Amino acid sequence: MGKIFVDACFGKETPYTPVWMMRQAGRYLPEYKAVRAQAGNFLNLCHDPEKACEVTLQPVDIVGVDAAILFSDILVIPNEMGMKLDFLAGEGPVFESPVRDEAALDALIGGEEAANKLTYVYEAIALIRERLAEDKALIGFTGSPWTLATYMIEGQGSKTYNICKKLIYTNPDFMHKLLLEVTEVVKLYLEKQIEAGVDVVQIFDSWAAALEKSKYFEFSWNYMKDIAAHIKAKYPHIPIIMFPKGIPAYLDEIDGDFDVFGVDWSTPMALAKEHLGDRYVLQGNMEPCRLYSKEATKECVTSIAETMKDGRHIFNLGHGILPDVPVENAKYFVSLCQEVSKR
Amino acid sequence: MGKIFVDACFGKETPYTPVWMMRQAGRYLPEYKAVRAQAGNFLNLCHDPEKACEVTLQPVDIVGVDAAILFSDILVIPNEMGMKLDFLAGEGPVFESPVRDEAALDALIGGEEAANKLTYVYEAIALIRERLAEDKALIGFTGSPWTLATYMIEGQGSKTYNICKKLIYTNPDFMHKLLLEVTEVVKLYLEKQIEAGVDVVQIFDSWAAALEKSKYFEFSWNYMKDIAAHIKAKYPHIPIIMFPKGIPAYLDEIDGDFDVFGVDWSTPMALAKEHLGDRYVLQGNMEPCRLYSKEATKECVTSIAETMKDGRHIFNLGHGILPDVPVENAKYFVSLCQEVSKR
Repeated sequence: MGKIFVDACFGKETPYTPVWMMRQAGRYLPEYKAVRAQAGNFLNLCHDPEKACEVTLQPVDIVGVDAAILFSDILVIPNEMGMKLDFLAGEGPVFESPVRDEAALDALIGGEEAANKLTYVYEAIALIRERLAEDKALIGFTGSPWTLATYMIEGQGSKTYNICKKLIYTNPDFMHKLLLEVTEVVKLYLEKQIEAGVDVVQIFDSWAAALEKSKYFEFSWNYMKDIAAHIKAKYPHIPIIMFPKGIPAYLDEIDGDFDVFGVDWSTPMALAKEHLGDRYVLQGNMEPCRLYSKEATKECVTSIAETMKDGRHIFNLGHGILPDVPVENAKYFVSLCQEVSKR
Repeated sequence: MGKIFVDACFGKETPYTPVWMMRQAGRYLPEYKAVRAQAGNFLNLCHDPEKACEVTLQPVDIVGVDAAILFSDILVIPNEMGMKLDFLAGEGPVFESPVRDEAALDALIGGEEAANKLTYVYEAIALIRERLAEDKALIGFTGSPWTLATYMIEGQGSKTYNICKKLIYTNPDFMHKLLLEVTEVVKLYLEKQIEAGVDVVQIFDSWAAALEKSKYFEFSWNYMKDIAAHIKAKYPHIPIIMFPKGIPAYLDEIDGDFDVFGVDWSTPMALAKEHLGDRYVLQGNMEPCRLYSKEATKECVTSIAETMKDGRHIFNLGHGILPDVPVENAKYFVSLCQEVSKR
């Protein structure tokens, strides 16, 4: 049985435009919160294949999305590269010992050894793929090397990324060395996700917007492109989605061997279509806060459908769903996307 | 004696392209830190005309910028509208009682009454203008109504602005009522700054990028335009600088009666020039982290000068200077801008 989501990623004609939501397995769902409470903390949930499987499948059953996305966190990679990770209430992820010098960089676990420590992810994938309906796709994912490096260097989320950016402008070799090491782990991580059963992979570059244009391509996009080319050469049947958040002014230089470009809400869909619509399927991009209102949701879905009616498209939000969104509105969004795009 | 900075704001020929830096009176200067320490806390410094004058003048003397910008904070407006404000170490500004309902909105002090409470600002301006060299310009400023409203509603800085945005999508009338009330105070505030002696005004829309395109124009830019038109009609000799941070994808719809458009670092100067260079003088836009390196500074200043060599331009950073930048590098940036643009 074919998967409409995979077909849409390759730009094939589908009965309607498929839809999923970033962070669809998350705190807006009471069912998620129940499992999360059982797990004790966030990282425990990532480490438990059975529970990760359960929350991954929830939005497919409850909200009716066309694809499941593996429940995990982008920071499991640096964690298994040897960096102690805590999720502190109200503060988000914190690495106790950030990587800021050669010694810390040399101490990292790299390549196969790091990728092999992520078995709980591959086990979750196998479970999910077994239990997920055959016509639904399972999306695997990773953070981009740059986005992972920001956490590894800053030690936590940052407003200014000034430690990372100081390195970029004063010690670019160090930054490239770190990015290259992370890139090697990411390649293996995605390969193993694919071997375990994911149908699609998405690379999240959540902190793309932290860099000015020339540095963005040098320190982030080029590494993402390299990963995409590597995966595409080995697994041409697996669609690749790139999601660099918040770089509307850089679209004219986007290129590479991937299938779908994820459009964030700050980038008008018409602008993305103008620059990239000929070469890539576009995914997105409703402003997540519109989910607070059915009327605002309808206005936006209708407008995106109109913009993309002669284009290749996958519906999604333009960023993750927020925890205080009514489940009913999320269901409304998903069914409306499927309805308005019926062919 | 003419002011080169004012001439440049009006697009007149000047001997070189003038330069200033956002947050130029700030923590990277040991002299600022000394005065700040005397003041006890940040708000005390804003409230003390003599000390505010002293730190305003420091970067003119020490770093050699072509314009001084009044030392103050955008949040003095909501503070004088009756909202108790604290600056907590590590947390930034916090309003004890955010404005989230009609009762709180009705309780705000508005119009002349609020504007008249900001006497410490007007006194600082009079002092600064008296002591500043005649050929240097003094820039007054305000936050945009939208940016002020985000703090008034969220109560503090926010990652998602979801309380504000929920209002936008579910109760736009409330949001417009608040924005209108703030707009009226801002107009009077800028008038009084001009009467007290500022030569130029800048409207900072620091959280412009929090809104999707259509909502940006409805809830932020239209109010900024209204303020600019009001000031321009009354004081045509005072240049107006608009600085909406991080909206490179919205430039095609920017219009209004102002003189200078402030370009942030995420917007390539060439893109800003393409959309706005015919109509407005452009200000900006070196990525502030380049100040960590003289080499990176030189590369960028040279490139901006090249892009703007046939355009109307004011040099600046693309966002505020960071506290850990060497003063020597800031001096280098300023003198380099003045040097490379000599005519």
